[in-house]
Amino acid sequence: MSTGVTAAHGFRASAVEAGIKPGRTDLALLVSDRPCAASGVFTTNLAKAAPVLVSAEHLKAATARAVIVNAGCANAATGVQGMADARESVALVAQALGCETHDVLVCSTGVIGVNLPMPKIRAAIPVAAAGLSAQGGAAAARAIMTTDTKPKESSRTFDLGGVPVTIGGMAKGAGMIAPSLAPLHATMLAFFTTDALVDRATLDAALMAAVGPTFNRITIDSDTSTNDTAIVFANGASGVSIPSSGAAYDAFVDAFRAVCRDLALMMARDGEGVQRIAEVIVKGARSSEDALRIGRTVADSPLVKTALHGGDPNWGRILAAAGRAGIAFDIDKVDIHIGDVFVCEGGAARHYDETVAHEAMLMDPGRITVDLHEGDVSESMWMCDLTKSYVDINAHYRT
Amino acid sequence: MSTGVTAAHGFRASAVEAGIKPGRTDLALLVSDRPCAASGVFTTNLAKAAPVLVSAEHLKAATARAVIVNAGCANAATGVQGMADARESVALVAQALGCETHDVLVCSTGVIGVNLPMPKIRAAIPVAAAGLSAQGGAAAARAIMTTDTKPKESSRTFDLGGVPVTIGGMAKGAGMIAPSLAPLHATMLAFFTTDALVDRATLDAALMAAVGPTFNRITIDSDTSTNDTAIVFANGASGVSIPSSGAAYDAFVDAFRAVCRDLALMMARDGEGVQRIAEVIVKGARSSEDALRIGRTVADSPLVKTALHGGDPNWGRILAAAGRAGIAFDIDKVDIHIGDVFVCEGGAARHYDETVAHEAMLMDPGRITVDLHEGDVSESMWMCDLTKSYVDINAHYRT
Repeated sequence: MSTGVTAAHGFRASAVEAGIKPGRTDLALLVSDRPCAASGVFTTNLAKAAPVLVSAEHLKAATARAVIVNAGCANAATGVQGMADARESVALVAQALGCETHDVLVCSTGVIGVNLPMPKIRAAIPVAAAGLSAQGGAAAARAIMTTDTKPKESSRTFDLGGVPVTIGGMAKGAGMIAPSLAPLHATMLAFFTTDALVDRATLDAALMAAVGPTFNRITIDSDTSTNDTAIVFANGASGVSIPSSGAAYDAFVDAFRAVCRDLALMMARDGEGVQRIAEVIVKGARSSEDALRIGRTVADSPLVKTALHGGDPNWGRILAAAGRAGIAFDIDKVDIHIGDVFVCEGGAARHYDETVAHEAMLMDPGRITVDLHEGDVSESMWMCDLTKSYVDINAHYRT
Repeated sequence: MSTGVTAAHGFRASAVEAGIKPGRTDLALLVSDRPCAASGVFTTNLAKAAPVLVSAEHLKAATARAVIVNAGCANAATGVQGMADARESVALVAQALGCETHDVLVCSTGVIGVNLPMPKIRAAIPVAAAGLSAQGGAAAARAIMTTDTKPKESSRTFDLGGVPVTIGGMAKGAGMIAPSLAPLHATMLAFFTTDALVDRATLDAALMAAVGPTFNRITIDSDTSTNDTAIVFANGASGVSIPSSGAAYDAFVDAFRAVCRDLALMMARDGEGVQRIAEVIVKGARSSEDALRIGRTVADSPLVKTALHGGDPNWGRILAAAGRAGIAFDIDKVDIHIGDVFVCEGGAARHYDETVAHEAMLMDPGRITVDLHEGDVSESMWMCDLTKSYVDINAHYRT
């Protein structure tokens, strides 16, 4: 059974050991058997990696057919040589596949400031092209991992006029995760494939509609990467066309968003050192921007993250984080719930059972609700706890 | 020898065990033997604690004589009862000292959302008043500690026309530290006393000139507290008057800033779980705001903080943090030094000796320099490493 990026018809993938990360697969190739509409969103970080710049340039055309992805080296902050290496990589893939260079996209993830080991890449690309398979999705999802502990795949199939349409995806990312892909941030990489027939403008809209409320709503460590990328390929192999609006468009976006949500939550749960995740719901805001700014400030607060880790229903830290978010609101109207336990009313302590609140803070996933009573807009962010393992993973001397 | 807040003439302090934090002193009283000009700056957090609101109200008058400070309970998010408790505390101090209620300020630090144990406060205030001593500064500095491992005191004496003038201070704070006291943030408390004669407007200006480049430039965990307060009392006991500008004003501000810098760096170094601190210098910015925003983003980045902890000269994380700070600049012009090691030039890796860079990253204090080459403004922030002890200290179930 084919999963992830090869769940949709007409896509093949492969994974090879290029030797960038010794002892495991580290290079994935994803190819459509026909031209695709393609769309991508990229990190908002000013320090964009060479592969981000090359892929964004190639996506100025509305179509693409393939993407080559390596783990172990971000090819970021690599200057002129980095750009040359990214360009050579896509040219080699185009040559192996017999397509145009601008039909190939490229992504890298790993250490910043180190050049790609091009002799290894040159040797691996033909092997990857030769190994392409309609069952290759799972292997590809494994090859793009860095500090991830698990591969991340998902797919949905829905019917349009009796014809099944599939959208599938894979993603990686466990640290430097606070996605805001144009407009997102993270190093997350996410790849989606669908056998629906979708024009570029519709695909652009659907991609943002799918990643906005999902990947853009998780934060592992507030650090936004130089390489974040989400790319979707639509090859039309199902014969089903998706219009720019209406019921069929909505069904497509719903399925796309469900795949994104699956992958985004897998990413949060597999975040570096993460033991528990929680949804931070900000209700009663005057705008979506206000709600998200407050939600993100709570979700990124080291003191709230450690409280989540310890199962401490320390709502004072939640209130303090909301109060420093830079959004104007009346602190004396704020209610806070931990799970279903009403702990803070009108900005002050309520009487509640500490044991019950402690149990609510230990739930996984947890739920923290901050009601501002200022307006009627709600948004939510997914947060992770901060653990000693996060420090272990990131404090080791990089070698 | 009298130190800290009792180094200047005409100030007395005391510390008592009120029983808020069992087994140690937890209530400090600081009093001038005559009326003082007084000035204060407070947290910008919307969730301002009751003592912050009461002290700010009392400081609408230009003078004050005393401040009562407790550890163990922040009296924040305590609603109407919290305000009543803060008002009763200052009234009791005024009664014990024989001064007006509005001459007394109040500060609290500790757990949020818990009411002050007023029977204990009522019993302790007369004891504190009876125990006031010109040698009491050191004991007071110890009584206001929460997770601090060391008391924090400093003072400077300088000559004006042959007459010695002293300014001294004490501070506490180890977590929820990212001061921005109006315009600062943190729970830091800082108290300063001087025997100079200073009018209120001059004292206001001197206070901001002293705390701006010192307390406002440290960040321990990016979390801004509900209770942050810095207060200065000037009682004129030296007989030396400080004008609103000129050489004598400059000498006063220099001494004041030196005391603030001592205390701010003590605070950073005693931050929760902190093992090493570093200065992040952002050069070549177009404005002070740009430089500080970038400096703060680097200083608060969990990935840079863990790299500092591990002695990893991982400048890619520094570049990535700068790139997500929300300030426009040309990433291809950025140079980064770790200590004296030039690691990144024009946004790309330089050849450097990893061992030397690793040693530079292990220096204490460390120094990270980011040169934007966009303008001629420099600013610096002081950062701390992120350790497993920080997680231990903050993940424990609050009891």
